[in-house]
Amino acid sequence: MTATLPNAQDLYPSRLAAPGELLERQDPTVWPGVDDGPLGQQELQDYDGKGYLVVPQMITPTELESFRTELDRLRSDGSLKQDERYVVERETGDVRSIFAVHQISQKINDLVHDPRIVNRARQILGSDVYVHQSRVNYMPGFTGSGFYWHSDFETWHAEDGMPRMRACSFSIALTDNFAFNGGLMLMPGAHRYFAPCAGETPDENYKSSLQKQEIGVPHREQITQLARKFGIDQFTGPAGSALIFDSNSMHGSGNNITPLPRSNIFIVFNSVENTLGEPFAAANPRPRHIADREFTVVNPK
Amino acid sequence: MTATLPNAQDLYPSRLAAPGELLERQDPTVWPGVDDGPLGQQELQDYDGKGYLVVPQMITPTELESFRTELDRLRSDGSLKQDERYVVERETGDVRSIFAVHQISQKINDLVHDPRIVNRARQILGSDVYVHQSRVNYMPGFTGSGFYWHSDFETWHAEDGMPRMRACSFSIALTDNFAFNGGLMLMPGAHRYFAPCAGETPDENYKSSLQKQEIGVPHREQITQLARKFGIDQFTGPAGSALIFDSNSMHGSGNNITPLPRSNIFIVFNSVENTLGEPFAAANPRPRHIADREFTVVNPK
Repeated sequence: MTATLPNAQDLYPSRLAAPGELLERQDPTVWPGVDDGPLGQQELQDYDGKGYLVVPQMITPTELESFRTELDRLRSDGSLKQDERYVVERETGDVRSIFAVHQISQKINDLVHDPRIVNRARQILGSDVYVHQSRVNYMPGFTGSGFYWHSDFETWHAEDGMPRMRACSFSIALTDNFAFNGGLMLMPGAHRYFAPCAGETPDENYKSSLQKQEIGVPHREQITQLARKFGIDQFTGPAGSALIFDSNSMHGSGNNITPLPRSNIFIVFNSVENTLGEPFAAANPRPRHIADREFTVVNPK
Repeated sequence: MTATLPNAQDLYPSRLAAPGELLERQDPTVWPGVDDGPLGQQELQDYDGKGYLVVPQMITPTELESFRTELDRLRSDGSLKQDERYVVERETGDVRSIFAVHQISQKINDLVHDPRIVNRARQILGSDVYVHQSRVNYMPGFTGSGFYWHSDFETWHAEDGMPRMRACSFSIALTDNFAFNGGLMLMPGAHRYFAPCAGETPDENYKSSLQKQEIGVPHREQITQLARKFGIDQFTGPAGSALIFDSNSMHGSGNNITPLPRSNIFIVFNSVENTLGEPFAAANPRPRHIADREFTVVNPK
């Protein structure tokens, strides 16, 4: 199905001349519509309050092993290194991410359709869902460079034309996440505020922003305000655990000088009632492997 | 007192053509000689085993406040910014460290002589002690760049001519140390191995190494070996707590993208029986504000 419609109203203006005041979120975090699923009431409440939830053992140790093998295979497949879906580390040339990986790997496509995954997404988003983005991330030891604070939604809205905050991300850890090897930091509750960012979106911004984001970055004053109000938490836990987080969670990660690399599988589901329109603040939408504009409902199987 | 003597034997060769095998430590960690002091037997044993020890409230909240004021004063004193004892952040020009700060600030000089501090150093080093180095460190929020893995002793031995592992450092936190704002990482027990480093020491290496160390850096293989054997721990805790650590502790810190800056007071005591000789692996010794070659016994007062 394709759906590129002109957008009516911009509820979350960004890429402005100057960073704006924090705006209150206009959307629910947990959407009504799908009552049954793996998530209990308490988990949904926690997710609603903090904007994220940790599932301690999303995949089993046996599955973990097979996903690691699959990631090694994908990363070392020389024939794919020139593929636009592969993002390489600026300094070392190592593979940092592989986008649209559910279209490259059958194994990851199966994971997307796994009821443990997709049914949780359906519960949170209150509707049928599709994959907005998928990728695997490799953060090497010693030189892992981390990612500065940002809201994914800010970019998805400005550059991809996602109208509302009705998407959620699954980050499934394939390595142990310690506090000190670049584990994701989040601000519990900050998803209830939108931080309008300063700066016009350059053409093909995604080509550099996936390595180091320069535009769509919240102002220090906004980050300080949110950190003061909500504090900072960190996603730590053994391999196999998953973090599910709201599209507008304020998050970032430090660098990683430890010998312990990190890798994860990252799947973003969007509601079929929230498909992409024209970008709200960019001349052209980003390519499909980064933000899919043609969507197929993901049914559990 | 001055003591620059030729060195007899190099127990810890470094700055070699290639990184060497890990060497077993030839020195005690806790030296016999001073029986009484603030440290209990259990604390001394812990220090001996791990190579470091946390003292939860080394200074009181009232003292904390007055040291913060003192640091703000020192940092903003424009007349001192050209002073060689001031080290500025490469990218921003902000003050990152002030060396020999106990000679600049009476307040910090008093702290050096505080029985809570110096008597702990005397117990660990088993003799009279003097200040090998003192400094205050400021790690800003958002852009704090951290420090890669290293042993201080490696540099003090190679570049300053410190013969034996008989020095210890006090890092007194003036801000809360979280896991995620660049808190020091240590490898408990790794102080029992010396990691010989590769690379000849360039002239005036200290001028760049205090910003980003390039020489005297352990090889990744050595770091991996030590991390596998000993694991990684992190110094977290409220402002006012102190970390005392052995000169040969393997330590480092990640960057800091949080809005929470970090600052601390750092005092290195060396035993008067371990004074500096000719550098073991450098053409000239580093300047006195970085590694004092004339020493005065620090008596508690």
